[in-house]
Amino acid sequence: MCAHAELSAMRNLSGARHLQMVEAMAARVAVNGFGTIGKRVARAVMLQDDMELVGVTKTRPTYEARIANREGMPLYTIDDKQLSLFEKEGVRVDGVLQDLLTKVDIVVDCSPNGIGEANKKLYEEAGVKAIFQGGEEHELAGFSFNAFSSYDEAHDRKWARVVSCNTTGLIRTLYPLDRMFKVDEAFAAIIRRGADPAESKGSALNAVEPSLHVPTHHGVDVKTVLPWLNISTMAVKVPTTNMHVHCIHVKLRKNGVKTSDVLSLWDQMPRIRFVSGKHGIKTSGQIMEIARDLGRHSGDFAETVIWEDGTHVDDNSLYFYQAVHQESDVIPENIDCIRSMMGLEKDASRSIRKTDRSMGISK
Amino acid sequence: MCAHAELSAMRNLSGARHLQMVEAMAARVAVNGFGTIGKRVARAVMLQDDMELVGVTKTRPTYEARIANREGMPLYTIDDKQLSLFEKEGVRVDGVLQDLLTKVDIVVDCSPNGIGEANKKLYEEAGVKAIFQGGEEHELAGFSFNAFSSYDEAHDRKWARVVSCNTTGLIRTLYPLDRMFKVDEAFAAIIRRGADPAESKGSALNAVEPSLHVPTHHGVDVKTVLPWLNISTMAVKVPTTNMHVHCIHVKLRKNGVKTSDVLSLWDQMPRIRFVSGKHGIKTSGQIMEIARDLGRHSGDFAETVIWEDGTHVDDNSLYFYQAVHQESDVIPENIDCIRSMMGLEKDASRSIRKTDRSMGISK
Amino acid sequence: MCAHAELSAMRNLSGARHLQMVEAMAARVAVNGFGTIGKRVARAVMLQDDMELVGVTKTRPTYEARIANREGMPLYTIDDKQLSLFEKEGVRVDGVLQDLLTKVDIVVDCSPNGIGEANKKLYEEAGVKAIFQGGEEHELAGFSFNAFSSYDEAHDRKWARVVSCNTTGLIRTLYPLDRMFKVDEAFAAIIRRGADPAESKGSALNAVEPSLHVPTHHGVDVKTVLPWLNISTMAVKVPTTNMHVHCIHVKLRKNGVKTSDVLSLWDQMPRIRFVSGKHGIKTSGQIMEIARDLGRHSGDFAETVIWEDGTHVDDNSLYFYQAVHQESDVIPENIDCIRSMMGLEKDASRSIRKTDRSMGISK
Amino acid sequence: MCAHAELSAMRNLSGARHLQMVEAMAARVAVNGFGTIGKRVARAVMLQDDMELVGVTKTRPTYEARIANREGMPLYTIDDKQLSLFEKEGVRVDGVLQDLLTKVDIVVDCSPNGIGEANKKLYEEAGVKAIFQGGEEHELAGFSFNAFSSYDEAHDRKWARVVSCNTTGLIRTLYPLDRMFKVDEAFAAIIRRGADPAESKGSALNAVEPSLHVPTHHGVDVKTVLPWLNISTMAVKVPTTNMHVHCIHVKLRKNGVKTSDVLSLWDQMPRIRFVSGKHGIKTSGQIMEIARDLGRHSGDFAETVIWEDGTHVDDNSLYFYQAVHQESDVIPENIDCIRSMMGLEKDASRSIRKTDRSMGISK
Repeated sequence: MCAHAELSAMRNLSGARHLQMVEAMAARVAVNGFGTIGKRVARAVMLQDDMELVGVTKTRPTYEARIANREGMPLYTIDDKQLSLFEKEGVRVDGVLQDLLTKVDIVVDCSPNGIGEANKKLYEEAGVKAIFQGGEEHELAGFSFNAFSSYDEAHDRKWARVVSCNTTGLIRTLYPLDRMFKVDEAFAAIIRRGADPAESKGSALNAVEPSLHVPTHHGVDVKTVLPWLNISTMAVKVPTTNMHVHCIHVKLRKNGVKTSDVLSLWDQMPRIRFVSGKHGIKTSGQIMEIARDLGRHSGDFAETVIWEDGTHVDDNSLYFYQAVHQESDVIPENIDCIRSMMGLEKDASRSIRKTDRSMGISK
Repeated sequence: MCAHAELSAMRNLSGARHLQMVEAMAARVAVNGFGTIGKRVARAVMLQDDMELVGVTKTRPTYEARIANREGMPLYTIDDKQLSLFEKEGVRVDGVLQDLLTKVDIVVDCSPNGIGEANKKLYEEAGVKAIFQGGEEHELAGFSFNAFSSYDEAHDRKWARVVSCNTTGLIRTLYPLDRMFKVDEAFAAIIRRGADPAESKGSALNAVEPSLHVPTHHGVDVKTVLPWLNISTMAVKVPTTNMHVHCIHVKLRKNGVKTSDVLSLWDQMPRIRFVSGKHGIKTSGQIMEIARDLGRHSGDFAETVIWEDGTHVDDNSLYFYQAVHQESDVIPENIDCIRSMMGLEKDASRSIRKTDRSMGISK
Repeated sequence: MCAHAELSAMRNLSGARHLQMVEAMAARVAVNGFGTIGKRVARAVMLQDDMELVGVTKTRPTYEARIANREGMPLYTIDDKQLSLFEKEGVRVDGVLQDLLTKVDIVVDCSPNGIGEANKKLYEEAGVKAIFQGGEEHELAGFSFNAFSSYDEAHDRKWARVVSCNTTGLIRTLYPLDRMFKVDEAFAAIIRRGADPAESKGSALNAVEPSLHVPTHHGVDVKTVLPWLNISTMAVKVPTTNMHVHCIHVKLRKNGVKTSDVLSLWDQMPRIRFVSGKHGIKTSGQIMEIARDLGRHSGDFAETVIWEDGTHVDDNSLYFYQAVHQESDVIPENIDCIRSMMGLEKDASRSIRKTDRSMGISK
Repeated sequence: MCAHAELSAMRNLSGARHLQMVEAMAARVAVNGFGTIGKRVARAVMLQDDMELVGVTKTRPTYEARIANREGMPLYTIDDKQLSLFEKEGVRVDGVLQDLLTKVDIVVDCSPNGIGEANKKLYEEAGVKAIFQGGEEHELAGFSFNAFSSYDEAHDRKWARVVSCNTTGLIRTLYPLDRMFKVDEAFAAIIRRGADPAESKGSALNAVEPSLHVPTHHGVDVKTVLPWLNISTMAVKVPTTNMHVHCIHVKLRKNGVKTSDVLSLWDQMPRIRFVSGKHGIKTSGQIMEIARDLGRHSGDFAETVIWEDGTHVDDNSLYFYQAVHQESDVIPENIDCIRSMMGLEKDASRSIRKTDRSMGISK
């Protein structure tokens, strides 16, 4: 396909076309696990007119369980013993996971890393589809999802895995680059936040901690979605709570690409947003402040954020910084994944647009 | 007054009485300065049905100036030279401060500390009332305000000063304690956040910095509102961005007060909210997470937050921890102060209730 | 005793008297546990001419075990299984704990909190004396030690416990105050460092975490040494690694005490050192820099450090800030405790002076 | 030169050869500026038997000025007015900069960035040689120095510039790689510490701040020493105080290079030291702990530190993490630079070895 046709194809991702609405019943959705990701997915499901949040689960009657009550989400727990404990603690609960699974079409598994395998058996027995998160291995679902690049491939699948926050962030910017200019090689150094804002135990204080197994799994994970991409990564953890920041160096195959070409390309993509040091946005903390100023729920910033004036092409080398909000960037991806797997919408760009509008994500 | 009558008087602050609505034109309000406090005051004014936000000011065409544009707030700048600069940078601007002052009844001065004195002259010339913030000296306004304790005294005043975030937090919990149980002596150690989340220059990293002039000004500032209170304070700055935390030791004059008596008292007051370590809320970061979960704009927590299970009475000694969100706790106080000064509402409890409802502050 | 005699008695603590040297064999010392405290105690023992470091222990062949090798300290481990593991990893090891205990007179237990009780049985069986650290309960040893106030009481004891870093810091400044001016009441808010510099898991990042059980155990612990002192404490944990900082409010019984009287008193005490904001020392980080500039081993600051210009007496209320280096302030106390328990020196002031000289602690 | 000869040539850098000692008078050295770098250079000069520290300068009678007094270093200030101020504050001072310059052969300029140009004129007038630091432009000296790669070129020069801590760290590992295996391309993401431990104002708290001008100056600066090296860099600032950490991706021209080849090469170089995650050293904080355990003055770690198990070669791609102690890695470089410029020693490897021994830097 020529570059012009490519661009035109990608523009559709940001969604000008109006196809005929697929007539469908609302998908009945469960969210298994109600932590950082689970509570956000549940809230996003509630915002969709083609989905119904049937229930969420929590193993213990914690603060988060009380949130589910407060927000009117039907709450389920693990077994009868826990059920009594919830009642004793004054937390309303509607049953156990098994009950919940009988009432839904699909479950979004947001349980802690590594227990996806055990859960998968339960879902299989109950005959429900499931979406796992990036903390699980690709092999568990056999298919890894990103809305830009693999929406079509998720149609009617039984299992899918939405890749992690860092992987999602990398795909959003590298996929269009590769489509338009061909990427010969990409390298990213990932500066990871040490802990989420409400985690009571953090990373080391006053220290930087590298991920010693190099190249790190992040690049490998990008290839579960874009197997042809020549990418490698390294990563360090730093004592901050609010965003991952990526230093990215890309070798473009196409000659003569200018900085402005790259910026225009990204500008046409959904879920990418620019900030500028010239306007005073110099740190990841200031990016989060924009999300607060925009009145986003929880101060979340689901887009991949690029410093416009920190992007530069030098011959065939592209350098840029991007920031990824670890708590929220995968949320719209989960919604799109549900939509594709449940056959609610055939067209990627329409689903992305619908999701983004419902969540207040706009350019 | 006997204790029972006292309690009953204070209960009214949380607002059960329904007095007749004062018939009034909406107050025309300007917010001079559009930073951390200014943008929040402006948004809160927009939520009031008895106030009109006529305009806000910004000296330079920064990121914040663009927010004002985006949120549809009329924007003014300082002088004609700046006005051209705004236009050049593509920021819509409606005039200069002098223009704005001709159109309003009252201005909330949220400019940087220490320029209040110069501004006061401008307000005086324009014949508008003004509210200053806690960064200015008490003497500038000659009257310091807290909605619980001095709402009535602000009626029809020309100048007032809303005390700082720490002072506001201390008054909210100490004032009812003193009314009900008499405070013989109070001591607070204030653990201050080092910088606001979006400040690009912070405090020292990995260090604690005491305020060496002891006892610190915070206790002195409480006395501008409650002159009879025997309070002293010390303070340190620590490398966090999200809340001030107070360690408070109070000697109660009344004998036999129990921990539960103190908690019940506070439970009846507006703008005080409990959290509990037992429910998993162990840190100031987790308190901010509650604000996010509540869907508060900017993740703000305008109430003074007390750890229920970190409160204890031992003989006549009361110990408790409270947390104060430095960006937002003074915002409802500014709204109430406007209402009292403009004669929009005679009754403190009704104003407090109206403000809190509009801002989503509820128990 | 009159104030003059008191002062003169205390002056002796800083050690002008020259008593006759007690003729003694060097005490044979083991250090059980080789972490933050253990490695420092072991090094300090090596500096004493009346003590011999017979060996240290480590459960696993970690980095610290290699330090012991490098510094020429005989190394022991827990059991034969570990012994093989050490050899396999190329770490020299001389035997197991039981072997070591047959060769020593006294063991300094620097093992992790809470296993002191199990260890005590081993020491009892081996017939050796033992010193426990502040992480263990007072009851385990039945005697808690501070060199200023209880050196004499440790003579010939079988068990002792050196109180924790915070408790040691509080006793050093409060004990002389109480002796000279009588303390009616003391309150301290303790701002604790979140983790030690080399701990790979820290406290919460970007958050303050109060110790909810109030008043906290720190004040209670001071009373294990000074039972008559009316003291209560509160504490918060902050994300720093380098020092605990105390905000202290003391009510003095004696009238007319001036700030300069308090400073002169402390100036005559060993293990107390002043810093001054006027000379640019404004933070705990800058205090640690002084230790580095002094060329102290590990950049340690074993003294309790007081901000001279952060100390103020107002009527009978004394306010001051002090900083305590959590890794090192108990080290000289352990050395003095060995000396008293082993009968190496009868006089507190002479032991303190000897210890301090050996470690380079001077005014 | 064949690879074998290369290796043998480089081995000499670690210094087995024993050439005849150059008979020389001790070089008379001044250190202009006594902050983080200046005080360390001055101490290192005092350790050399072929250099004499004639004096150091300080503009104001701060804490650092008192250190110079305490350590017995002759202290000079800027002008007569300051001289009186020092005397008034009780700080001993021996004269002004002009006096000092008449007594020395060479001055190490450790004054704040950007005033080197003005200083150079003074040095020129006084007829003394000068070494500038990496904060100054290459053009000021016209020659940038690293002991590994350009010792010989500094002989008898009048001006030189020791490159910055990050640049020094990069040259130490990349120079031998390029000599042995040829570097086709190198990319480094530099994670910079936000502030030095004793700086009272830091970087943003809880935020990551990218250097938006990309590729950053660090790579450009490496080329002032190694002009042929194809290197580019990006950088972010994080809220830590203790080390810069580099994520480095190198394309080697030579085929078949194994990870062990790279490690053996570095193992033979001075001023490179390995740590290992397997031995529990996972963070930059833990690296600094090693320096403390080694008893290094100020806990400094002048070597470039590489994670042995964080180094990996994959085809021709080499990935590795290294850590650089920003306060101390340039200190031995300054000493070697003095030695070369003053003709005290013709052989690089002998100078490096002499410097390292004097400072306790050993493998």
